[in-house]
Parts: sequence; structure tokens; C-alpha cells
Amino acid sequence: MAFFITLEGVEGSGKTTQAELLSIWLESNGYEVLRTREPGGCLIADRIRAILLDPAHQGMAADAELLLYAAARAQHVAEVIRPALARGQIVICDRYTAATLAYQGYGRGLDLDLIRTMNKLAVGTARPDLTLLLDYPTTAGVARARQRNRVNKGENEGRFEAEDEDFHNRVRDGYLQLAAEDKSISVIDARGSIEEVQMRLRQALNRRLPLPAPDRP
Amino acid sequence: MAFFITLEGVEGSGKTTQAELLSIWLESNGYEVLRTREPGGCLIADRIRAILLDPAHQGMAADAELLLYAAARAQHVAEVIRPALARGQIVICDRYTAATLAYQGYGRGLDLDLIRTMNKLAVGTARPDLTLLLDYPTTAGVARARQRNRVNKGENEGRFEAEDEDFHNRVRDGYLQLAAEDKSISVIDARGSIEEVQMRLRQALNRRLPLPAPDRP
Ligand SMILES: Nc1ncnc2c1ncn2[C@@H]1O[C@H](COP(=O)(O)OP(=O)(O)O)[C@@H](O)[C@H]1O
Ligand SMILES: Nc1ncnc2c1ncn2[C@@H]1O[C@H](COP(=O)(O)OP(=O)(O)O)[C@@H](O)[C@H]1O
Ligand SMILES: [Mg+2]
Ligand SMILES: [Mg+2]
Repeated sequence: MAFFITLEGVEGSGKTTQAELLSIWLESNGYEVLRTREPGGCLIADRIRAILLDPAHQGMAADAELLLYAAARAQHVAEVIRPALARGQIVICDRYTAATLAYQGYGRGLDLDLIRTMNKLAVGTARPDLTLLLDYPTTAGVARARQRNRVNKGENEGRFEAEDEDFHNRVRDGYLQLAAEDKSISVIDARGSIEEVQMRLRQALNRRLPLPAPDRP
Repeated sequence: MAFFITLEGVEGSGKTTQAELLSIWLESNGYEVLRTREPGGCLIADRIRAILLDPAHQGMAADAELLLYAAARAQHVAEVIRPALARGQIVICDRYTAATLAYQGYGRGLDLDLIRTMNKLAVGTARPDLTLLLDYPTTAGVARARQRNRVNKGENEGRFEAEDEDFHNRVRDGYLQLAAEDKSISVIDARGSIEEVQMRLRQALNRRLPLPAPDRP
């Protein structure tokens, strides 16, 4: 049975850690799971991401940036997410449309309606069934993300880690605002041990997904 | 005085040839002219164009493609066209929003309203004051473009030259349809010598632009 889960939250809130555990748990329950992430997730999206991240492109216009994010997302949806859902898999995506609203909208001040238009263009009907918002204090989160980047040099995902505390707080508050307006977003307290947070995620998911999974041949 | 002219038409209709002559003529009349072209026109747009043209990207989704074109255009407008108009220059752009409607819309069958939405997002208020549509028979045009590409290897602009005759006729008819709906598009008969066509363009422009130009210091 197709089901589309996205994980959202500030840097270091535990999205990647929890997405991995969640997918292992779902697979052990007999589900087929596809785990992916944004921005990126396929060749063309990665090429677009390289343009977005190139320091030579400081002069990129805000609307061009939004359109590039939307293009990468449209390709990711067409090439990865939609086919997986069509195969009946559970898709777990690390960041998605809410991240654009939280970071570009609440964080950077771009027009929320414009972002919503872009999101809609990019994803079409591939809207998340459930968004798990890992709510975590921003200072601790950024510190955790920096520590992770030092240890694990290849995995530096954070373009926003250099932003100041105010920025991250706007993003966190923005996420909470989005959750207040949208029933498909569940706010999860991301404080505590990895195991504690994982149990909260499973509970939130249990309320939405009939578990255990149907028997597989 | 700022004035924004775009040149449109099928492959080989003479856009690039006529744009150059038009800009020389306008400059000799005392105007400051900026000549540019799409897709491309600046570094970031050229990087995006490279993704669009890469043969490894056959699987590009139609909506991702449209969003990439829009992103390149948004950057071109922000970085090149809008500043030139703000300086009071005359901008001559070889292909613009009508080309996306004609090629992706009428040619490839993508939704015209979706393309209009993208165009609007990308250009904002930077709409052409005058679009000069060079109307020319498609078979002769494509032949002329192929001949040009053989002689002048570096200038192969035509991604669409490999398309069949039906495609090019849909594009030509699409352009004419757009002109029928939009008073800012002037249809110019592009048959005859380069000089004859240039005179027609100048006449069309004379009706819109007060010539000769105001005295310059
Ligand atoms: N509940 C937790 N307690 C302690 N450390 C955690 C917890 N969750 C994640 N971490 C660690 O914090 C860092 C950031 O976690 P990560 O999953 O990469 O966050 P995100 O993907 O949201 O940026 C990683 O080094 C991870 O091992
Ligand atoms: N009126 C004309 N008569 C004969 N040849 C022309 C005429 N206009 C353009 N050409 C030639 O046709 C080729 C295509 O013209 P070009 O300006 O590159 O068209 P476009 O930019 O519309 O594809 C060029 O080699 C050009 O020199
Ligand atoms: Mg992560
Ligand atoms: Mg040309």
C-alpha cells in the first residue's frame, strides 16, 4: 500500500537518523520502503543542486533560485517518488515542500503564496500523506549538525548552518505555524534519546498506517 | 528611453541577422542598445541551459524542463534585461516568452496556461513592449538554419532542427495564433532579401518608437 511520509525539522533535529530507523522498522514489518531526500535524489536534481550551491553564483535571483528548487523537485517526483508510490511502496523523504516554505519563506522572507504555487507545480498530486515535524531547539540542533559534519565530512548537507540564530528560529517557528494550519503535519518532540524520539514517530505513524503490514508472498 | 523589443520566429527566419542590423540602426540613431538572447544570456542561465541540452538527461520530466527554462529566464531578466531597461536602454532580445508558448506549448503540446504561469513568474513586469514575429515558411527556414550551422559550426543554436515538419508548422501557426491574441506582437513577412525584411522591421518599430532618438550629451 502506497504511503508518502516526509520528515521535516531544523538542522540537527534528527531527520536523517530517524528516517533510517523508521525505514528499517517498516521493512521489518513487511513493507517495501523507498528512502530518499531533498534537494537531490536523482541525477538531474543533483546537477541542479550543484548550480544552487556553487559559490560563483552569489548573484542568483531569489525567483530563479525558487524555480531551480522547483525544477529539481519536479524531476525527483517524476523519476523517484511517483514511480515508487505507483509500485505501492512506502516513500520516506528527508525534507520536502514544507522545507521550502520554512527556509525560503519564513527564514528568508520570500512570498509564501509564490512558494506554494511553485510547490504545487512541482509535486502535482504527490503530496505527503503524513509529515513528521521533528521539533527541536535550534541552538542545540545546529551544534549537533556541526559536530556531525566534523565527524562525517562527506555528509555536510547544511547550507544553512552558517545562518544566524534568528534565521533558525524563524524556520522553527515557521514549521510550527505550518503544522498549526495543516492536519497532515504531526509535531514530534525531538528532544531525548534517539530511541525515545523513534518511539514517538512510530506512534504517530501507527495512528495513520495500519500495522502490521499485510502478508507478503 | 527604455524600450523592450523581442524577436521571434521559427528556425532560420532571420531573427539573429535582423536583431544585429536593428541594433546597429538604433545605435546610429543615438539610442543605447543592449542585445541579448534566450535561452542563456548570462552565466547562471548558461549553466541551466547545459543541463537542458545534456543528452544524458533524456528522462527529464516535462514540468522540470519548463521550470528550468523559467529559472534561466528569471535570472536573465534579473541580471541583464531589467538593469538595462532601468538604465534607459533599448533591449533587443532574440527569443523570449512567446518562444516558450510556441515551442513547448504549440509544438510539444504542453499546457499553455501552465506556460503562461511560468512566464509570468519568470519575467514579472519585464514584458516586451514590442514583439517582432518573423513569419517565414518552415521548410525553407529549417534548410537555411542547417546551412548556417554547417558554415558556422560554433553557432548551432537549434535544438529543434531535428524535429519534423509537422512540429515546425505547429510552431509557426502557434506564433501566428499568439499574434492574433496580443496587440504587442507585430507579424513581419520575413520573405525577401535581408534588406527588405529589415525595412519592414524598422517601419513596424517606427510606429511604436519615436525616432530619431533624443539628442545625447
Ligand atoms: N536524539 C538524539 N540524541 C543525540 N544525538 C542525536 C539524536 N538524534 C540525532 N543525533 C545526532 O545528531 C546529529 C544530527 O542528526 P541528523 O539525523 O543528521 O539530523 P538532521 O538530518 O535533522 O540534520 C547526528 O550526528 C546524529 O547522530
Ligand atoms: N532574408 C534573408 N535572405 C537570405 N538569407 C537569409 C535571410 N535572413 C537570414 N538569412 C540567412 O539564413 C540563415 C539563418 O538566419 P538567422 O538570422 O541565423 O535565423 P534565426 O536566428 O531566426 O534562426 C543565416 O545563414 C542567415 O545569413
Ligand atoms: Mg539530514
Ligand atoms: Mg538565431
